[in-house]
Amino acid sequence: MYSCDILFPAHHQITIIKNPSAAKGRHNHTFFELNCIKTGRCLVELGGHSFFLPAGSFAFLPPDTAHLVHPNQDCIWYQLLIAPDVLEQLLSFDNNIFCEFFLQSVFTKESTDCLISHTASAEPDAWLLLDAMTLECQKADLYSDKMLFHLLLTLFYKLMRIGEMTILGSHDFAKKTHMAVIARYMLQNYTCASLARLADQLNYSLSYCSHFVLENTGFTFKQLQKKIRMQKAVSYLLYADTPVNLIAEQLGYSCSENFMKVFKQEYGLTPTQYRARMKPQ
Amino acid sequence: MYSCDILFPAHHQITIIKNPSAAKGRHNHTFFELNCIKTGRCLVELGGHSFFLPAGSFAFLPPDTAHLVHPNQDCIWYQLLIAPDVLEQLLSFDNNIFCEFFLQSVFTKESTDCLISHTASAEPDAWLLLDAMTLECQKADLYSDKMLFHLLLTLFYKLMRIGEMTILGSHDFAKKTHMAVIARYMLQNYTCASLARLADQLNYSLSYCSHFVLENTGFTFKQLQKKIRMQKAVSYLLYADTPVNLIAEQLGYSCSENFMKVFKQEYGLTPTQYRARMKPQ
Repeated sequence: MYSCDILFPAHHQITIIKNPSAAKGRHNHTFFELNCIKTGRCLVELGGHSFFLPAGSFAFLPPDTAHLVHPNQDCIWYQLLIAPDVLEQLLSFDNNIFCEFFLQSVFTKESTDCLISHTASAEPDAWLLLDAMTLECQKADLYSDKMLFHLLLTLFYKLMRIGEMTILGSHDFAKKTHMAVIARYMLQNYTCASLARLADQLNYSLSYCSHFVLENTGFTFKQLQKKIRMQKAVSYLLYADTPVNLIAEQLGYSCSENFMKVFKQEYGLTPTQYRARMKPQ
Repeated sequence: MYSCDILFPAHHQITIIKNPSAAKGRHNHTFFELNCIKTGRCLVELGGHSFFLPAGSFAFLPPDTAHLVHPNQDCIWYQLLIAPDVLEQLLSFDNNIFCEFFLQSVFTKESTDCLISHTASAEPDAWLLLDAMTLECQKADLYSDKMLFHLLLTLFYKLMRIGEMTILGSHDFAKKTHMAVIARYMLQNYTCASLARLADQLNYSLSYCSHFVLENTGFTFKQLQKKIRMQKAVSYLLYADTPVNLIAEQLGYSCSENFMKVFKQEYGLTPTQYRARMKPQ
């Protein structure tokens, strides 16, 4: 079960705050979190690890992983909360380290991977972009989400250019590659995905394919399918006004009662309650 | 036949120059041209029309249409040259007035439409974005094209928010809508498009469909198909290193000799000559 113990401003797919005031305790949420350290330094605890981020660091934390970010006193930093949907959009028109990180983070059971970029802190453009994004986020005007998306991608390319990007984590390369294959199939076919069709596509026997999914993601096929459907359900509930029965249909559930039951098991709230509580009116 | 009487810096899909020095005579080229007037004013001649752009105007001129842009002495302006490919990318993940303008501009025989946005000239953000783009374009570094693309889209959304956008032109609404249907089909199926398949998709008879295409675009189906293939060919030649015989294959030509013959008829140069001349090494 996901836990989301803090109500984030989930009405935007991308939210950015400069120097967030409350130093929260260890927590987790369904968003990716990007911490950008302009000056000073920041302690990060993620899973069982902890490390310092010096000035000029950008650290991308995966969703659903307990973490704590503790800045020192003279730290100026930006915190971005990014819905998984945003990174999923990248998959359709690009292939880069952010896509790789996204696939790994979303499709493994115990994900504590973290994408880190170290840049020279003197690089001014990145901070200008983050300031522009902060203003846009506060404005929350027509097309703000779209503009934040394109400014974020500009930042991503800037980081790829100026920073040394590394994914810290324990997954080996072969596992990562297999995971990406499975993940792409599941994302592209979430309404009608089946183990038989995946096995067919990979040219594996049904039993080997079942083992392959479990081995490389830590989930059974059914669990993985549920995970993606739940993630999509949250997006529909928060960022669209789609009625619950239509969401169930679009996710490939045969009846909406079934969808509602599964959703409540996962989040402890019915879809309607979840929308009412998490989506500001 | 297309004429491209000026050698543009075609190695970038998006090029931006602040206050371009040479006041060129009437000319045309295969790029979209976006003129952004910060101060002063600018005279534009396009097709048979001419009009003044005051400070705060953004005017998007279609490709392959003779035009002249003449700034007055105290005019500060930015000129962007944008490859049709860039706007085509928009179609796959969005639907807005820029898509509409793109479809109209590329898929009509005598296009003199122009997309104009009038903003309050005091709006500072747009000019900051254009300055950032100018710097990025001069830098021409790794990922510059990607960053220019995302900054351009940020500008588009900003214009949609702050400006009154209008498409000046003579095409009536029904014609525009039909054109868009045809255009989308042709772009999505350019390797294997056929009049029979389009007729099938629209549920029209073959002869009515043929008439429908000609009536709404001014081109026969074959002419339209050639136009798109030639546009794609130019992209492959300028922005990729794909060998000519592979380009022919990817465009759906049965043999590369045929492709080379058609290309030379269109541009007066063989594909290899075109690449050598237009793509800086």
